[in-house]
Amino acid sequence: MKKINSHPYLMLKPIVVVGAIVDGRVNFMTIADIIATGRRIPRFGISSRKPHYTNKGIIENETFSVNIPSQEMIVKADYCGIVSGQEVDKSTVFDVFYGKELKAAPMIEEAPITHACKLVKTVDFCDTHYLFIGEVIETYINEDFIADERPDIKNVKPITFYQDYWKVGDKFAEAFKIGEEYKKS
Amino acid sequence: MKKINSHPYLMLKPIVVVGAIVDGRVNFMTIADIIATGRRIPRFGISSRKPHYTNKGIIENETFSVNIPSQEMIVKADYCGIVSGQEVDKSTVFDVFYGKELKAAPMIEEAPITHACKLVKTVDFCDTHYLFIGEVIETYINEDFIADERPDIKNVKPITFYQDYWKVGDKFAEAFKIGEEYKKS
Repeated sequence: MKKINSHPYLMLKPIVVVGAIVDGRVNFMTIADIIATGRRIPRFGISSRKPHYTNKGIIENETFSVNIPSQEMIVKADYCGIVSGQEVDKSTVFDVFYGKELKAAPMIEEAPITHACKLVKTVDFCDTHYLFIGEVIETYINEDFIADERPDIKNVKPITFYQDYWKVGDKFAEAFKIGEEYKKS
Repeated sequence: MKKINSHPYLMLKPIVVVGAIVDGRVNFMTIADIIATGRRIPRFGISSRKPHYTNKGIIENETFSVNIPSQEMIVKADYCGIVSGQEVDKSTVFDVFYGKELKAAPMIEEAPITHACKLVKTVDFCDTHYLFIGEVIETYINEDFIADERPDIKNVKPITFYQDYWKVGDKFAEAFKIGEEYKKS
């Protein structure tokens, strides 16, 4: 093994588009630094560099949306990652709708899946990044992307990030099952 | 759009094997709930259900390792996710080595990439899960997996999780570049 400069390699991350209302205007930022957990209390944690324009809206309204883009949305999703709402009006990039409860969580109409989240905690992930922890208040899914009552990965076509954008490939093993083979070895 | 039960869908997550020393013995747990960020201050955040056996070692030693498994390691990786160190000795599942600084971060010899991390903060991600934030103190890479001085995704063959285990597919767009097309539209 060769020691290299310390860097948190994961080799793959999911791409999401975060929506917020900043100074009264819809804004989006595209990120890959996100963690999700919890069935009983569904939560996302999103890491965002402190100067990001979108942060202002998340903090002021204590609300944000998490939109899962399909590969077909890559041009718009990447665009929302390379320009700042400070300089460019991104409010018309996507058509949006709002849920029943959170009026500052613009959810993307064309996204296969979208969530409205209430900010519950802001943590200093490090000196340079916030970690916004949000509870998922509402989840919406475009019915075209459901199979067996769940979002279908082959239909959703989520975007994998590692330096560039990658498709998801084939299923190669069953989770919580293939490990049984180790017991027999 | 159809409203469904609130659930934090990401559609894809990276699989990692977390290593720790619990009660003097090497232990591993396999997780998909992880976030990474920071170039200047490299950090991971890992979410772990509070009763997990591995947590005890992470908290006591303020140290853990984050190992990126390749698809070839799926049987062992899945195994470490389905049995608890409370009941089973997982210390011999992988050969390990230690870095120069953190003596309680067992790093997996056969992993393409591995990191030794110092716990810097423990956050309640929700009632049921901790979020352990760790600074990456050392990163090691197996030289077979490097191309152009970086880990090569096609060599590493990282594991994607969504209900089951998936390969990474083909690259389909360049990050921070394809979005330029939106400006022209």
